[in-house]
Amino acid sequence: MFQHLPALQKLVNQLRHVPYLASKNVYRVAMHFLTRDEKQVRAFCDALIEARKAVKNCERCHNWTDNNTVCVICSQGGRRPEVICVVETWHDLAAIERAGGFQGVYHVLGGALSPLEGIGPDDLTITSLLERVAEGSVRELIFATNPTPEGEATASFIASKLGNREITVSKLASGVPTGSSLEYMDRVTIYKALSGRQPF
Amino acid sequence: MFQHLPALQKLVNQLRHVPYLASKNVYRVAMHFLTRDEKQVRAFCDALIEARKAVKNCERCHNWTDNNTVCVICSQGGRRPEVICVVETWHDLAAIERAGGFQGVYHVLGGALSPLEGIGPDDLTITSLLERVAEGSVRELIFATNPTPEGEATASFIASKLGNREITVSKLASGVPTGSSLEYMDRVTIYKALSGRQPF
Repeated sequence: MFQHLPALQKLVNQLRHVPYLASKNVYRVAMHFLTRDEKQVRAFCDALIEARKAVKNCERCHNWTDNNTVCVICSQGGRRPEVICVVETWHDLAAIERAGGFQGVYHVLGGALSPLEGIGPDDLTITSLLERVAEGSVRELIFATNPTPEGEATASFIASKLGNREITVSKLASGVPTGSSLEYMDRVTIYKALSGRQPF
Repeated sequence: MFQHLPALQKLVNQLRHVPYLASKNVYRVAMHFLTRDEKQVRAFCDALIEARKAVKNCERCHNWTDNNTVCVICSQGGRRPEVICVVETWHDLAAIERAGGFQGVYHVLGGALSPLEGIGPDDLTITSLLERVAEGSVRELIFATNPTPEGEATASFIASKLGNREITVSKLASGVPTGSSLEYMDRVTIYKALSGRQPF
């Protein structure tokens, strides 16, 4: 019945491409926009286009930045540029920043290796990370990729490319999350927490 | 950390107002748009603005329409304008059309009465429905509001406003849905299916 409403059909088709929006909710979101003021819809679009124009990737760490060169973390005083925390995405970087306590800088890979999805090393910023390491000033590399097969394979792949450089390479501790119940933990998590146990 | 990225912050604020988009996914959707071609982002915005401009409410039944007057169902030949099916929203109308078999026309209320959410009779298209009935040509009114307290209260409210007109008023049958298991049905559904049992 939407063939009579080409404008609505077009909007619905566009909304279908938005990730994390369930297909059953596409029509509801379309209705939300149809019932807004035209001014509000325009403000939404302006914000979208402006952000797409203004926000770029940092030349060093590939984090988002408003200006064309380096991001706020890379240019921040008091950071230790010789310690690089390697994360998959910008959200992971934001999560570590929220946790606080990390004084080094980051490298955003842009995802994880996934042969099934056709994501190879060239689709990530691995070359750029190896170049940063090759400059010689890096002392420590912390892998904070996700504890998934893809995330761990990505960390292993990068580690294999580092060669015999004298840098400390570590990864985030695997174990039981704070506030959780051992009872409900999966066995791989418990196994890893046990084998990675620490002095009390 | 987003105070350094006002354009991104603005986009995220706009996305927060989109319904059915979980707040944990707002940043992911923002990233989706930041990594698209500028042309694609513009196409999305064009579709949004165009739909907002072109799509209006039908003057008769308040369904969506592309032109300013009546919608495709109200103007369709072979429909029986004396039978009106009263639905809460456009999705409900679409669901009934998908089911097929209904030859009458519709009236879209635009929601259901909900004192808790501050939705009163004036926020719905109840007056417009009563005007259609008052014209005198309506023979049957079928309430297809949702079987929720709000939906049923809305139907009762409208029925109480109809006065002593000689029209048939009915509502959708309550019962067990096709393909379901009696075992997993809630007791209100079973009770209603029992009390509304039909000759075999």
